[in-house]
Amino acid sequence: MEMDWQKIFPGVWNFQAGENDVTLTGFAGALPAAELRNGSEYPLPENVSCRRFNDSIVLRISLNESDRVFGGGLLFQRVMSDNAVYHLRADHFRYSDNGRSHAPVPFLAVTDGLGIFCNSPRPVSLYIRTAQRLEDQKQLVERSRADDPQWSCFNPPYYIEIAVRAKGAEFVLFKGRDLKDCTAKFNLFCGGGALPPKWGLGFWHRTRMEMDSRAVRAVVDEYRKHDLPLSVIGLEPGWQSGAYPCTWDWSEKRFADSKELIAELLQDDIRVNLWENGYISKKSSLHSQLLPFAGSHLVWGGIVPDYTLPEVRQIIRRHNEKTHLDIGVSGYKLDESDGLDIWLWPDHAEYPSGLDGFTMRNIYGTLFAATTFESFHKYDRRTWGLTRSVNGGGAYLPYVLYNDNYDFREFLTALVSSGFTGALWCPEVRGADNGNELLRRFQLLAVSPMLLLNAWATDTFVWSFPEVEAGIRQAIELRKSLMPYIYSAFAKYHFYGIPVYRPLAMDYGMFMDQQTIAQAELDDTENPYQMVSAEDVTDQFIFGETLMAAPLAPGETSRKVIFPPGKWYDFYTGEAVACASGVQVIEYGADAPLPLYAPDGAVIPMEKDGELVIRKFGDKPGSFELYEDDGETFAYERGEYSWRTLNA
Amino acid sequence: MEMDWQKIFPGVWNFQAGENDVTLTGFAGALPAAELRNGSEYPLPENVSCRRFNDSIVLRISLNESDRVFGGGLLFQRVMSDNAVYHLRADHFRYSDNGRSHAPVPFLAVTDGLGIFCNSPRPVSLYIRTAQRLEDQKQLVERSRADDPQWSCFNPPYYIEIAVRAKGAEFVLFKGRDLKDCTAKFNLFCGGGALPPKWGLGFWHRTRMEMDSRAVRAVVDEYRKHDLPLSVIGLEPGWQSGAYPCTWDWSEKRFADSKELIAELLQDDIRVNLWENGYISKKSSLHSQLLPFAGSHLVWGGIVPDYTLPEVRQIIRRHNEKTHLDIGVSGYKLDESDGLDIWLWPDHAEYPSGLDGFTMRNIYGTLFAATTFESFHKYDRRTWGLTRSVNGGGAYLPYVLYNDNYDFREFLTALVSSGFTGALWCPEVRGADNGNELLRRFQLLAVSPMLLLNAWATDTFVWSFPEVEAGIRQAIELRKSLMPYIYSAFAKYHFYGIPVYRPLAMDYGMFMDQQTIAQAELDDTENPYQMVSAEDVTDQFIFGETLMAAPLAPGETSRKVIFPPGKWYDFYTGEAVACASGVQVIEYGADAPLPLYAPDGAVIPMEKDGELVIRKFGDKPGSFELYEDDGETFAYERGEYSWRTLNA
Repeated sequence: MEMDWQKIFPGVWNFQAGENDVTLTGFAGALPAAELRNGSEYPLPENVSCRRFNDSIVLRISLNESDRVFGGGLLFQRVMSDNAVYHLRADHFRYSDNGRSHAPVPFLAVTDGLGIFCNSPRPVSLYIRTAQRLEDQKQLVERSRADDPQWSCFNPPYYIEIAVRAKGAEFVLFKGRDLKDCTAKFNLFCGGGALPPKWGLGFWHRTRMEMDSRAVRAVVDEYRKHDLPLSVIGLEPGWQSGAYPCTWDWSEKRFADSKELIAELLQDDIRVNLWENGYISKKSSLHSQLLPFAGSHLVWGGIVPDYTLPEVRQIIRRHNEKTHLDIGVSGYKLDESDGLDIWLWPDHAEYPSGLDGFTMRNIYGTLFAATTFESFHKYDRRTWGLTRSVNGGGAYLPYVLYNDNYDFREFLTALVSSGFTGALWCPEVRGADNGNELLRRFQLLAVSPMLLLNAWATDTFVWSFPEVEAGIRQAIELRKSLMPYIYSAFAKYHFYGIPVYRPLAMDYGMFMDQQTIAQAELDDTENPYQMVSAEDVTDQFIFGETLMAAPLAPGETSRKVIFPPGKWYDFYTGEAVACASGVQVIEYGADAPLPLYAPDGAVIPMEKDGELVIRKFGDKPGSFELYEDDGETFAYERGEYSWRTLNA
Repeated sequence: MEMDWQKIFPGVWNFQAGENDVTLTGFAGALPAAELRNGSEYPLPENVSCRRFNDSIVLRISLNESDRVFGGGLLFQRVMSDNAVYHLRADHFRYSDNGRSHAPVPFLAVTDGLGIFCNSPRPVSLYIRTAQRLEDQKQLVERSRADDPQWSCFNPPYYIEIAVRAKGAEFVLFKGRDLKDCTAKFNLFCGGGALPPKWGLGFWHRTRMEMDSRAVRAVVDEYRKHDLPLSVIGLEPGWQSGAYPCTWDWSEKRFADSKELIAELLQDDIRVNLWENGYISKKSSLHSQLLPFAGSHLVWGGIVPDYTLPEVRQIIRRHNEKTHLDIGVSGYKLDESDGLDIWLWPDHAEYPSGLDGFTMRNIYGTLFAATTFESFHKYDRRTWGLTRSVNGGGAYLPYVLYNDNYDFREFLTALVSSGFTGALWCPEVRGADNGNELLRRFQLLAVSPMLLLNAWATDTFVWSFPEVEAGIRQAIELRKSLMPYIYSAFAKYHFYGIPVYRPLAMDYGMFMDQQTIAQAELDDTENPYQMVSAEDVTDQFIFGETLMAAPLAPGETSRKVIFPPGKWYDFYTGEAVACASGVQVIEYGADAPLPLYAPDGAVIPMEKDGELVIRKFGDKPGSFELYEDDGETFAYERGEYSWRTLNA
């Protein structure tokens, strides 16, 4: 297929394959950020071709032997995506990274600095170094399994195939210096990352679903008594007159005084966030208005409004503004837009806009988020909330992903892999079997996009296990003291597209043995093909400008920490912990707090008793760009912000 | 959509929705069995409708409140399919029953005796009591989760939607007395079940892949020394001159004397079975002939012949006959037709016949089996072999499914659920961590469609753990003594379509509490929606005419056994173990052998020292139809067989 790549920004090109069709960024309402104009220039990559195979359009990207591939949506068990097939579809993560994802974002980044985005909500499959074409057979070295100990089950071809089953699709290429640069360009293409209000980075508590306003006040009192400043209180299904399906109307029984409650809480600088899902009950004041715009199938017995229609968005915005925003509600938790299949509408469902169920599913979380966001933007009040799914184009939307799983390592890996999605992930704390688990979970959470204790079905508090309360408070204190650092990181996400949470490879490249593959042990059940795999760092991440976290899992008292080449310092003591020209792997043996390291030259702005304190690590010169604005409104969109260079 | 159902047999109708398209039975080469003409008559069911939703054709079947649904392919974790969504696709089973299956057969059976078959290899999704349409909202009772303890996450609608994404599809309805009767009609529609040669039901051993003919002889000697009659020896990849990709040519290094070896083994009544996968090496004598008919992508570096083409089948048959059948090879193990995605061609692959990769994947195992079967049929020699995938229409093909998993309970459940697939499942033994595990696995295996010790990557033997050798021999002896019973069961599968392995519901209906659902415990991670589920019997089955097996899992010394209403007897002692007008659940506490029960009136023909011995259980009169034929050829297709009624 002839490709007509158009340069749209320096190092950014798009190409419309086939007919025009709907796009992810279009549904998300994402507009490319102006900063893209300042991107570095590159010649159009020549390793891309496109053809039609049956009912799919297939973009093929040739790779060099040393290239490795990242991305393909939010992943829970891996970060590097070499040798993977993902059939992207919005879904709850279950058991394996196969494309069913809370953020099934069709974006891939290659270590040579090439990013590829298939800007389509249609069925997209990513074949990453797996599907070898017949005409490339010459590349292959054939070995016989029973004869040759060098036999490997994989002869991975040096290319990616991205297949989209649609009459047409927009593809966008981003070329940058490295993984970070091309991903930043992708994020900017999606509008730049979301900038939270400062209160959004404070402490969140979600109450049990059956609580009424009195019970909510009691929870707030508990926090006051325990001298733990609460930033946001989340109300779960019970705030509504009916839920599953939802009414989105206040429960007169439980929250007759919603207006007073919220005003009272705001006096104490505590915001209220409301849980919702998008499936509207017959008992809702919205039902009759939305019924004409509902899809062909019900979810939880509720109608499914077609959010692609301006009428629907208007009805919902009007309702939200009048009954929520006007009385001070700060945001939403948008649940159950992700699946599983048994909850949602079928792929063949029909929507008034003409979209099918599969397509709608891939964008529902994004549409839901965009619709609520519009009101906050209009009110010039930043919001920070939760959503169970989002897709490409959603980077600019101030919503953090979560789910119902609870495996610590998967939660950690999702935070690491999120760097390639243009989405944020919250490893929320819901409860714990013991104090150590609660501590470990809070240590990770404290450096995440949202410090959320989601006690909707438990009565967990920070003080639930007295033996770890001090440790948890230390973690919360750490987050508070790092606010200038973290807030600036989000500003860089917004203005420059740089993800706040990044796998090591994004900052340091393939410094590990990620290109060598070891001979694997044959096992007729666990590994019948002697699959070998390159090393993947799934349990460490960089957050903000320079800091590297290597969280301990529940029950762990020590762990292996991988240090990229160079000097590294313990964040707490300032002591040098690693120093080499190559990679270093050190067993970290301390029991608390969160293992955190700064590289040579790192400058970390911190807050202590309201004062800015600057820490500097190592001997190398370093500086930090500190961002400041009002922390609450969209005045920054009108230029009301500052960057200050801190030299130390 | 107007439906034009045509009665094709008593109680069997078909309907071509949309345009004509390829079918599963067509690719399988399955022709309806004549016996269908003798089926019971029913009026055309009126609870079926059809419409087009976007690019899918959707058949909808309305259900009664008491109806429950089974089927939807080979399942490993459930048997009843109420409240499920399966996106059918040939694949290796991984973690959950979601439609990716070794036998993704689009057949469903309803407890009222209705069977539905979507005779299409295209993408078929089954929405079983999950996807409620807007126009049916009136059925719903709305409850508010936070207010009403009766709230349930499910308001399952009383219908099934079967969606096939194709320009057209054939749907077939089967109406019978009950689950068994409609499933039997489905099996007959697929040609009737496969009838094994008698030797196929004997003991199988697969050798390590690197073994040469001398090592194979040594294995055979071991069996002789241990006085364990071996029926089939399986050669793994190393018999070929190259494997992964495969040559299908004998290795001159290891098997220069293949002809002599096989002749020698046949003298001892031992057959040879050859492992293969369908991906052809450049080093193969077949490569240049098949290259013009290869698909667009490689697998394991080998070309993927398009088996839908007569030219391909002819080339392969000629090769197989000349180099394998002519020297006495008895059959094949057809590997790796199932997936995973990373091994196989992409969905968008192209084949010379015009088929796309998705469609080809759904039928590849079937085509592979049909092609090899054709030669054996021509030679008038029955075969019995293994395949990693099969689909609708494959019931008549003499191949048993297996995979690389090894969870005992999943292996057991697959045997149970196979009854609704028209496919057979082998819970092969590969090895064990301890004697008890080996014993438990052999006890289950001994009543399965193939008694296979697959030691391809281990050196496991029946005598590997001396403390359980006697127990394993007892299990093998049990199978041998039950041969007249089992062989007759396969004959009923062939002639009357009755599955050899059946879930309890197929013979006894919904005698359990499978229609009542209990209140479930809320758990924010394990069960956040308080999902309730009907009771599903996944670990017991009926095999053959009447016997019920309730295998013990490794490590178990007792288990719960569910007895359908009536009298039941311990198979070994003949003692009454259960007697009630309702269901009985009894804790079975013995340690060995396989828990096996006969209902009142059961007549079981057995073999002892070459003599037929008939056992009778209980007081009720009973009889047994004993099948006999030559056990080796297809003479039974020419009427050379007998049924004898045994009255006891």
